[in-house]
Amino acid sequence: MSRQRDHGPMNNGLAAALSVVGDWWTLLILREIFRGNVRFEHINNQLRVARNIQTDRLTRLVSGGVVEKIRYSDKPERFEYRLTDMGRDLYGAIIMLKAWGDTWVLGTPTPLIVHTSCGNPVAPVATCGHCGNGLTFDDTHDSHPGSGAGE
Amino acid sequence: MSRQRDHGPMNNGLAAALSVVGDWWTLLILREIFRGNVRFEHINNQLRVARNIQTDRLTRLVSGGVVEKIRYSDKPERFEYRLTDMGRDLYGAIIMLKAWGDTWVLGTPTPLIVHTSCGNPVAPVATCGHCGNGLTFDDTHDSHPGSGAGE
Repeated sequence: MSRQRDHGPMNNGLAAALSVVGDWWTLLILREIFRGNVRFEHINNQLRVARNIQTDRLTRLVSGGVVEKIRYSDKPERFEYRLTDMGRDLYGAIIMLKAWGDTWVLGTPTPLIVHTSCGNPVAPVATCGHCGNGLTFDDTHDSHPGSGAGE
Repeated sequence: MSRQRDHGPMNNGLAAALSVVGDWWTLLILREIFRGNVRFEHINNQLRVARNIQTDRLTRLVSGGVVEKIRYSDKPERFEYRLTDMGRDLYGAIIMLKAWGDTWVLGTPTPLIVHTSCGNPVAPVATCGHCGNGLTFDDTHDSHPGSGAGE
């Protein structure tokens, strides 16, 4: 079972994702924006992160296309940050990572998130978009284009 | 719709997860271990990361309980890194983040991962472990214990 890879780390979806959102603060800032804390001060009140770091991470999120900076007031000039489609599509990864931290690091769901339409606490599972079954590492393999395809 | 949170960022599953695996290199190292590159040199050959950084991140993964360091040779003394149950349970979050990078940053699945039992390229979806339906931010809400419960 060869799982070696023959290309560098940057030519890889995970590395590409981390280059945009791989910073500790970046994901926490995104989570605040998901929660509706879309203004600089609101995010800062929640995270108590150094303002220059927050500014830097927000600038990167805007340049990466994950959030948009929208002016909501002219006098004084004020902005808020809104998720793009690209940003909203990160929700699955964020909720999976949060659930892992709840389970394995904290030992309790904090905060508890509820799946509104079914009423149960969220226990996210990564499933296959084709067959709908759960995804595990042992049931996946890398396909190497040009190396014979098939199995 | 109040989604404000009344506790600090560290009292939060996402922050807790990131405190263990939030580093750029940490997740890439974990992905190599998932791929079967469990020895220091193999990981280093794949990622070409500075050795002191790799050593530091592996040490943190061991102390965080995500991987175990196992001696596989006495003379010379050699070790390999194996995922714990805690580590294996990160697969869902990693595959979701990789798929996001494929879709939104690279524009192509690199490498292409196949769901072995169904034969299709992996397109992971975060679903509810209770009802099985897909999870979106708009269909979830924070539950604030002691604030009245219910809806």
